[in-house]
Amino acid sequence: MLKLSFLLCLLGVCGSQYLPDWDSLDSRPLPAWYDEAKVGIFMHWGVYSVPSIGSKGTEWFWKHWDNQVEDYVEFMEQNYPPDFTYQEFAPQFTAELYDPVQWAKVMNASGARYFVITTKHHDGYSLWPSHHSWGWNSMDVGPKRDLIGELVSAVRNTTPHIHVGFYYSQFEWFNPLYLSDASHLFTTNEYVRTKSLPQMYDLVNTYQPDIVWSDGEWDAPTWYWNSTEFIAWLFNESPVKDTVVVNDRWGLLTKCRHGSFYTCQDRYNPGVLQEHKWENAMTIDKITWGYHRTTTLDGYYDPHYIISSLVTTVSCGGNLLLNIGPTHDGRIPPILEERVRQMGQWLEINGDAIYDSKPWTYQNDSVTPDVWYTERGGLVYATVLQWPEEEQVTLGSVTPTVDTTVTMLGYQGLLQFQQLESGISVTFPPLSKVSSEWAWVLVLAGVTPTPR
Amino acid sequence: MLKLSFLLCLLGVCGSQYLPDWDSLDSRPLPAWYDEAKVGIFMHWGVYSVPSIGSKGTEWFWKHWDNQVEDYVEFMEQNYPPDFTYQEFAPQFTAELYDPVQWAKVMNASGARYFVITTKHHDGYSLWPSHHSWGWNSMDVGPKRDLIGELVSAVRNTTPHIHVGFYYSQFEWFNPLYLSDASHLFTTNEYVRTKSLPQMYDLVNTYQPDIVWSDGEWDAPTWYWNSTEFIAWLFNESPVKDTVVVNDRWGLLTKCRHGSFYTCQDRYNPGVLQEHKWENAMTIDKITWGYHRTTTLDGYYDPHYIISSLVTTVSCGGNLLLNIGPTHDGRIPPILEERVRQMGQWLEINGDAIYDSKPWTYQNDSVTPDVWYTERGGLVYATVLQWPEEEQVTLGSVTPTVDTTVTMLGYQGLLQFQQLESGISVTFPPLSKVSSEWAWVLVLAGVTPTPR
Amino acid sequence: MLKLSFLLCLLGVCGSQYLPDWDSLDSRPLPAWYDEAKVGIFMHWGVYSVPSIGSKGTEWFWKHWDNQVEDYVEFMEQNYPPDFTYQEFAPQFTAELYDPVQWAKVMNASGARYFVITTKHHDGYSLWPSHHSWGWNSMDVGPKRDLIGELVSAVRNTTPHIHVGFYYSQFEWFNPLYLSDASHLFTTNEYVRTKSLPQMYDLVNTYQPDIVWSDGEWDAPTWYWNSTEFIAWLFNESPVKDTVVVNDRWGLLTKCRHGSFYTCQDRYNPGVLQEHKWENAMTIDKITWGYHRTTTLDGYYDPHYIISSLVTTVSCGGNLLLNIGPTHDGRIPPILEERVRQMGQWLEINGDAIYDSKPWTYQNDSVTPDVWYTERGGLVYATVLQWPEEEQVTLGSVTPTVDTTVTMLGYQGLLQFQQLESGISVTFPPLSKVSSEWAWVLVLAGVTPTPR
Amino acid sequence: MLKLSFLLCLLGVCGSQYLPDWDSLDSRPLPAWYDEAKVGIFMHWGVYSVPSIGSKGTEWFWKHWDNQVEDYVEFMEQNYPPDFTYQEFAPQFTAELYDPVQWAKVMNASGARYFVITTKHHDGYSLWPSHHSWGWNSMDVGPKRDLIGELVSAVRNTTPHIHVGFYYSQFEWFNPLYLSDASHLFTTNEYVRTKSLPQMYDLVNTYQPDIVWSDGEWDAPTWYWNSTEFIAWLFNESPVKDTVVVNDRWGLLTKCRHGSFYTCQDRYNPGVLQEHKWENAMTIDKITWGYHRTTTLDGYYDPHYIISSLVTTVSCGGNLLLNIGPTHDGRIPPILEERVRQMGQWLEINGDAIYDSKPWTYQNDSVTPDVWYTERGGLVYATVLQWPEEEQVTLGSVTPTVDTTVTMLGYQGLLQFQQLESGISVTFPPLSKVSSEWAWVLVLAGVTPTPR
Repeated sequence: MLKLSFLLCLLGVCGSQYLPDWDSLDSRPLPAWYDEAKVGIFMHWGVYSVPSIGSKGTEWFWKHWDNQVEDYVEFMEQNYPPDFTYQEFAPQFTAELYDPVQWAKVMNASGARYFVITTKHHDGYSLWPSHHSWGWNSMDVGPKRDLIGELVSAVRNTTPHIHVGFYYSQFEWFNPLYLSDASHLFTTNEYVRTKSLPQMYDLVNTYQPDIVWSDGEWDAPTWYWNSTEFIAWLFNESPVKDTVVVNDRWGLLTKCRHGSFYTCQDRYNPGVLQEHKWENAMTIDKITWGYHRTTTLDGYYDPHYIISSLVTTVSCGGNLLLNIGPTHDGRIPPILEERVRQMGQWLEINGDAIYDSKPWTYQNDSVTPDVWYTERGGLVYATVLQWPEEEQVTLGSVTPTVDTTVTMLGYQGLLQFQQLESGISVTFPPLSKVSSEWAWVLVLAGVTPTPR
Repeated sequence: MLKLSFLLCLLGVCGSQYLPDWDSLDSRPLPAWYDEAKVGIFMHWGVYSVPSIGSKGTEWFWKHWDNQVEDYVEFMEQNYPPDFTYQEFAPQFTAELYDPVQWAKVMNASGARYFVITTKHHDGYSLWPSHHSWGWNSMDVGPKRDLIGELVSAVRNTTPHIHVGFYYSQFEWFNPLYLSDASHLFTTNEYVRTKSLPQMYDLVNTYQPDIVWSDGEWDAPTWYWNSTEFIAWLFNESPVKDTVVVNDRWGLLTKCRHGSFYTCQDRYNPGVLQEHKWENAMTIDKITWGYHRTTTLDGYYDPHYIISSLVTTVSCGGNLLLNIGPTHDGRIPPILEERVRQMGQWLEINGDAIYDSKPWTYQNDSVTPDVWYTERGGLVYATVLQWPEEEQVTLGSVTPTVDTTVTMLGYQGLLQFQQLESGISVTFPPLSKVSSEWAWVLVLAGVTPTPR
Repeated sequence: MLKLSFLLCLLGVCGSQYLPDWDSLDSRPLPAWYDEAKVGIFMHWGVYSVPSIGSKGTEWFWKHWDNQVEDYVEFMEQNYPPDFTYQEFAPQFTAELYDPVQWAKVMNASGARYFVITTKHHDGYSLWPSHHSWGWNSMDVGPKRDLIGELVSAVRNTTPHIHVGFYYSQFEWFNPLYLSDASHLFTTNEYVRTKSLPQMYDLVNTYQPDIVWSDGEWDAPTWYWNSTEFIAWLFNESPVKDTVVVNDRWGLLTKCRHGSFYTCQDRYNPGVLQEHKWENAMTIDKITWGYHRTTTLDGYYDPHYIISSLVTTVSCGGNLLLNIGPTHDGRIPPILEERVRQMGQWLEINGDAIYDSKPWTYQNDSVTPDVWYTERGGLVYATVLQWPEEEQVTLGSVTPTVDTTVTMLGYQGLLQFQQLESGISVTFPPLSKVSSEWAWVLVLAGVTPTPR
Repeated sequence: MLKLSFLLCLLGVCGSQYLPDWDSLDSRPLPAWYDEAKVGIFMHWGVYSVPSIGSKGTEWFWKHWDNQVEDYVEFMEQNYPPDFTYQEFAPQFTAELYDPVQWAKVMNASGARYFVITTKHHDGYSLWPSHHSWGWNSMDVGPKRDLIGELVSAVRNTTPHIHVGFYYSQFEWFNPLYLSDASHLFTTNEYVRTKSLPQMYDLVNTYQPDIVWSDGEWDAPTWYWNSTEFIAWLFNESPVKDTVVVNDRWGLLTKCRHGSFYTCQDRYNPGVLQEHKWENAMTIDKITWGYHRTTTLDGYYDPHYIISSLVTTVSCGGNLLLNIGPTHDGRIPPILEERVRQMGQWLEINGDAIYDSKPWTYQNDSVTPDVWYTERGGLVYATVLQWPEEEQVTLGSVTPTVDTTVTMLGYQGLLQFQQLESGISVTFPPLSKVSSEWAWVLVLAGVTPTPR
């Protein structure tokens, strides 16, 4: 079928615009919504949410336990019978308190414009009733619900402006079919043919996500995964061909090189402008992506850190994908709800500096490096991450004009400023009159970048 | 490859003797051991051994529950949370008391010369670590042991004269791949390709069974299951090609028509001589094949019934495959151990009438129908199922000669007999001098069949 | 109150016949029903029926585990989390298949005329909703049923001729109140005051048993347990004062000395006539009283052994209390059902030699020691435990008269006999005409005991 | 013994100062530490922390479920087998992540000077190995640890300035002994004699708490509970006789009338000065005392509310006992850790207005009612709960003198103020220079109360 469409394409009747190779796939323009959205919520949820412990990541429980990492082994020895297996955690993944409408509301309150949820992690357990994961999915054991489907519906009904995204792990640590392919150096592909590809097609056809966020690709080449064929189908024929975006984890060496946006590595935040659209996937829990029961307060990033990450990421052309780990019984832990709502509170006041913005000439200020820029509709937004000592902040990268005005989001009235030899000095209003917390956005009208 | 071997065969270089069609397969002579063995033990064991209840069969628990059969539904409602699934029984299939050497000894004590165990029943759970049933096998959830492998080893080490046989269910009630194939009227075969065939090859290659006892075949045609190809491989190339026998359940309409031996239907015991080798698979529990917790004493066949079944079956050319259902924790219930040992006690004395025997001219007697015949080494064996009222039994089908002698297995000395107009009348010895119980075998030397 | 009744008694107004001392209590005549009944069924059922393993007795699971007996410790280590406690077995004592009417029918089929069930064993768990065992009784955790009450009702409704008896353990291994009393050398009695006495009064008042079968008394003196006061109440005022019998385990050194009947030790069967009424409490499982999952067929006594025990016990003036251990889910294992039904079959034919009988002059025969005697209504019953070699049995202890006749229970017609120098020789009929199995009862009319 | 000591007392040898009546007990001066401490942490932890749901309080789970309150019943119907009992939750009360040293550190960070933990709630489950609650305590089922003892040790080793307090429920909803006493209108007292009194003595003797915080007293009179005898022992003879304080819940009508301090009702915060020392026991979760899984962020009080409660309570002579509910696995939920740490942060700066303070002439200001006063060492502390609109706050209740100075805790330097016709007006510093959040404390030196 692809061959036919290719021939037709040569004849100028181009139904299938993209060929299954990276040159062609990478030539597709990024659907605008993704760059405009800037903020997403990431969710790692699955059977690992049951033990929910582990110093090296809770979502990697099975693997680290299998690798005899000490705290995982000790936890099992102290709390379970000797021959308990990971699969036997699944009946305890109950999700009895799971309320997807409440989740949609929390996501909405966070200011996120999209979300990405683990439909299947490296343990292979699928959070939807996958025909290719019989007995190892959320309908057969554990919740007895289509966790993915319910969330998609809730979001589409409740907060339809939030785009749906799916994390999908290509490999599965202990799937014997995958292990067999691997032991044949990926010259066989029984696993891909019978498991990963059918599942990805099923996910896209059933739920029509706008993001396919692949992972677990690193050990095998792109051709083993059939990634380019799949993405070509996504871009050419799938029900989401006009809106879908994909990340960059599609096979050995694709990361940071191919895909709609680059994720490069976990918690990627380069601090300088990137040529290609990218995403900073970071997690509020300082270590783990899945829920971690033993994380105490100091193990969570504070609102200032999160908002700083958002601001610096967006200034450099990235999106922030902020991760939370729901619990085995289906709840977003209140401390995480608080953090994402704090981000939402900040965005409620300061969203103009983020949504639909573009990086400016400068990313952060040449004199005061904790000030980060974006622009939008002719205005320059300077986000100041620390309240200035004497209510004076110097913006070295900004050159005023006669039309220059300076205001602050969340404050009524103009701010005083003073032209300096290079740049300007802005006087902050009394803190008690300002509604924003954690970071403050100066709106600069009629300014130009200071020449470098 | 088959085609090549076919050509070679035409050239007289016949590596692969049998073609994948019934004519060819059915032309293979039955390996002698199977007919000589006469007695096998059947075992139904699996996840269904956990609930182990159900008026319509415990091994069909999942299906009857799904079909809303009342006692199954009630049992679940009264004892489990509302959304408990069948798969969640698997962790309770613990087999912690499973002692395969003890099982081998019990089988040996039963007089069986082969056994057949469910490697996978219709629920799809495999009792060996099958790579094609990840997370739904006895190594991953439940016992954490290779139940099949351990039994095979125990038998081969302890009682090597007992042949190994494997029951294997072709279909799986709720496997979505099978259901999908079925909904496509079996024009697709994803299930067979990725599940049933790989598993059967794996079983044979790994454990080298002498019997492949197929079941669950009835909804789909032979070509869907690829049965003839599989059997051709079994007969031509497999590691057991010289010894293996297969039953007759390989696709729609194959039952009672094709295969090494016919099973026709459960508890098949036609009472008359059959042209083709057959097997009577019956179960000591009067109703169920899997362990049934609520069966009380009167729900088990008594020794007389079992021995009668054996005698009548063998007289008509069949083998008896006597079923027992082990428990979820790995035990043969003592009442079943007793029953099979009772059969063994009887065979210890009377085995000459059974093992290696052939049907005689008459199957049961023309005058005393509860007397059943076999022959072996020129002797005729008449098994009398009821102790005769006045110690006199009339054998109408037997004509004596001058050399005729009559003895009884388990009794020292000759028996008196009297020639009748047609047949003979044998005088039984005092019961208190006879070591056999339940049925008594007369050994008739120098007799001919009474002309009909 | 007792003192008052004593004074009244001196005045001839004797409401309370018995004083709380052994002299007085032992003076009470044994209610006739107990001696006439001869056969009872004993049942050990409780939380220990859940693990149901242990080489030194399953019902002692907790204690042996605590004492680090190897197989108990290993079982726990291999199958449970490290800090699992015995109490946590209780929720698994489900009894979901418990059908007390079926139990009553099985008891009836056994020929028993009474039963004794553990209302509480040494673990302290009560099988009725005891107010003095809150949270540690069958209504609060596990079955959620009054196991005792249901059985009492079922028996009284279904088989009212069967008397109700209660086993009750005085001490509890791990009850801290008991341990505290013990550490004070029984000079305190908080445990008895708040636990054991209130429970025994409750049991008697609520269910009116005809037997109180005490146990677990051995470490403390009678005065600690308040036994004589309790028994005086039982005999004087309780709702069962006219029918109740008690055993002999009521404090240090009471065993085999005081009480309505003596039990002396487990499996007590002295083989000679006893002066005082006694009981042989034995168990079909050769080792344990509670259900034992790993007992295989050879671990259960066969019918011949059981019937021999019954016969020898009754000949020497005892009753047989035959124990079975039901399962955690409320079933009588079929092998045990079979054994008690076999005893019942035998009693159905031979009950005349047992029920309402008395010991004869001789207990067993002076010449053929495997022949045991009873008498009843002027007839002498000689039970022959082995079928005689040449159909001839010599009874040395019997002297015939001119009126002597010999018959056999389960056989029609008179038996031949021959007077010997001392005793007689009886000719047995053909075994095939005899309906009894395992042991045969000769009914001797018109005979006298051979003088010693 | 009390009688003897009373006689000795008449003779002037007074070992036992207090008689077991309220007049005498109430005459005991309050140990100073308690009034000085001001802030305590309350913890509700127990078997109810397992289900941890319920609109009417999670700690009342058993009672509301028994009363058929809808959401409790539904939760059980949807998630548990039909006959599951409350007691069967206990094995799931695992506390496997319980780290008492970390708890001590969190309490310390909260600024608390004492804590009170539920040693036993109305369900009767004891969190220490109570001999009088065999099988229903934290050593026997669930944690297998002495939860109380470990916390007491951790606090005494880690943060010895924090006083230990014990909550103890007098009654137990479903204890049959209590119910029996109640049905006898409390004329019997088996429950008190065998359960509640022995437990309270045990707690005090074993752990030496400085607070005995009684509850569950309301249905029965003081004499039923033996409360005055117990308190007399506490005050006269117990190992904590010099330091211990008790609350006011010791029998019908004692609340708000007797005891070292009054609690009156849950969340008691009268807003006006009280004559007798009192305590405001409130909970961060707006509804429940035990952990509540379904509480979302808006169901927890924010730091401003908590600090306001503290300030108003202390101004009126009360202590604040701020409650948190740990989880079944032994964790303080991070959102609660955050709230108590926020209170601690505030106290770190503003503790001078709280600890060791006394109520002032005025409790809150006559002109600006959101300003609350305390005094300490000659200084008046005015806590302003809202940052004043134009940085000006009017204190009507304060009259300045020539020596008057005004400072603010957490701000360097003097504050400007202006004398008004009545009172003063204080000018606040720039918010950005102030380290306190949520409420601000003015320190007023050389002021007198404005005459009313």
